[in-house]
Amino acid sequence: MNIGFIGLGVMGHPMAEHLIDAGHTLHLSRVKEASQHLLTKGGIAAPSAKAVAEASEVIILMLPDTPDVETVLFGEDGVVSGLSKGKLVVDMSSISPASTKGFARRIEALDCDYLDAPVSGGEVGAKAASLTIMVGGKQEAFDRAKPLFEKMGKNITLVGGVGDGQTAKVANQIIVGLTIEAVSEALLFAKCAGADPAKVRAALMGGFAASRILEVHGERMIRQAFEPGFRIRLHRKDLRLAIDAAGALNLSLPNTAATQQLMNAAIANGDGERDHSALIRTLELLAGGPR
Amino acid sequence: MNIGFIGLGVMGHPMAEHLIDAGHTLHLSRVKEASQHLLTKGGIAAPSAKAVAEASEVIILMLPDTPDVETVLFGEDGVVSGLSKGKLVVDMSSISPASTKGFARRIEALDCDYLDAPVSGGEVGAKAASLTIMVGGKQEAFDRAKPLFEKMGKNITLVGGVGDGQTAKVANQIIVGLTIEAVSEALLFAKCAGADPAKVRAALMGGFAASRILEVHGERMIRQAFEPGFRIRLHRKDLRLAIDAAGALNLSLPNTAATQQLMNAAIANGDGERDHSALIRTLELLAGGPR
Repeated sequence: MNIGFIGLGVMGHPMAEHLIDAGHTLHLSRVKEASQHLLTKGGIAAPSAKAVAEASEVIILMLPDTPDVETVLFGEDGVVSGLSKGKLVVDMSSISPASTKGFARRIEALDCDYLDAPVSGGEVGAKAASLTIMVGGKQEAFDRAKPLFEKMGKNITLVGGVGDGQTAKVANQIIVGLTIEAVSEALLFAKCAGADPAKVRAALMGGFAASRILEVHGERMIRQAFEPGFRIRLHRKDLRLAIDAAGALNLSLPNTAATQQLMNAAIANGDGERDHSALIRTLELLAGGPR
Repeated sequence: MNIGFIGLGVMGHPMAEHLIDAGHTLHLSRVKEASQHLLTKGGIAAPSAKAVAEASEVIILMLPDTPDVETVLFGEDGVVSGLSKGKLVVDMSSISPASTKGFARRIEALDCDYLDAPVSGGEVGAKAASLTIMVGGKQEAFDRAKPLFEKMGKNITLVGGVGDGQTAKVANQIIVGLTIEAVSEALLFAKCAGADPAKVRAALMGGFAASRILEVHGERMIRQAFEPGFRIRLHRKDLRLAIDAAGALNLSLPNTAATQQLMNAAIANGDGERDHSALIRTLELLAGGPR
């Protein structure tokens, strides 16, 4: 299948490579040095998002934030200028649910389909093709894209209509961020009270405190091993999406707001490029320094 | 073995019963109507905590809060007045880690042993003998009590010295409370944004947001089924232990503090006797009412 792929960053690069490896013809825009070998594997460089859309049946986007998606879709020589009836746009970026609904309406008005399909699982999941993919859109469009999703991920769910994939991703990032913060408070408390955090973590893993975060990120906190993983800077962006959407809904999310503020402090103290488990370092600062 | 058991509430009653069923002779104080059948099963009513301690090799406490333990141990006709060299006091209540260290010193000064061994798993775990038991104290004392713990629980860990069991329990309650709050914010966000929270929960269960809380309490939130389980009123007490201890340590626990405040609001709005998953109702109130 002719597939367009726009956004060859840390996540997009391995995702595109899986599709090439599966035998698809990939049309790529803005190929940088790090992604040159996608061309040697058969990927085709296109001069613009428009050219990508003209050459492709399905156009996949994997971009940093809402304005990037808007520009690539609707800017000069953007995707929409290369679309024709029946094409499918799949946005796998993590962006605003409300903006997504607007983008989808404009794409669907051209007799094309739109899916939002943000992922979780990070760079490791992208490389291992084990991403969790949360999809919003029509069933037929989902069925059409599913064989492609299966080359990139494992837990693939059609959550609901357009935008609901992004809503699920925001919900995911709320839970992950706040659980990391919770585990940070608990393990730091244990340490300051004189207990061994490693033993406390082990004692808690069998009960209701058990989570993937306590397992994976709790272990990182104890080892003080904060190479990413998923960066605090990016997680702050995802909590901004939550807070912005909550503002539009008049919805109060007190701990999401507080955790976003802690991430501001983490970034101010030089931890923006560390794994989000490094949030415990910010709580240590508040407690007078490393423990 | 002659065992004393003081505190035959919702938790203590089934725990004591497991020990009787295992063939031990239980000396009980303050037996109320609900626990009469422990006597018909062979339990022996004693007139005071002192009498319980005189008759028993190991004395187990399962009481509501720190002052209750202090009174039963050191009050008039309390446990200490009935202790003699070599006896073991096991406090399975959830109380202050710092007070626990003081209580232990006073008991150990009488040539007796002390363990703190708070549990998690609630009434269901107490009845099923599947409690998680977090123990602080000396290895020899732990080895002595372990066969008894094994009649009441499953995940039994010696976390460290005296007080560290209580510290682990507080850490547990921080994580459980804050994760419930996180799942509440996420599922309410999903609902308000127009997605189906049940589908969002299902999509998230495969990734880093996965936890026992998302599994069990998330499902309760979606069904709006808030019969306890573990009551918000009791969880607020456990977060008070965290906040009190953190104050003494000059440790800032922002989300524990905020979640405790939400529990105040939950209780003010009549949800104190509901399961802690009902915290989502308080966030709904903040958002203008039930959704």
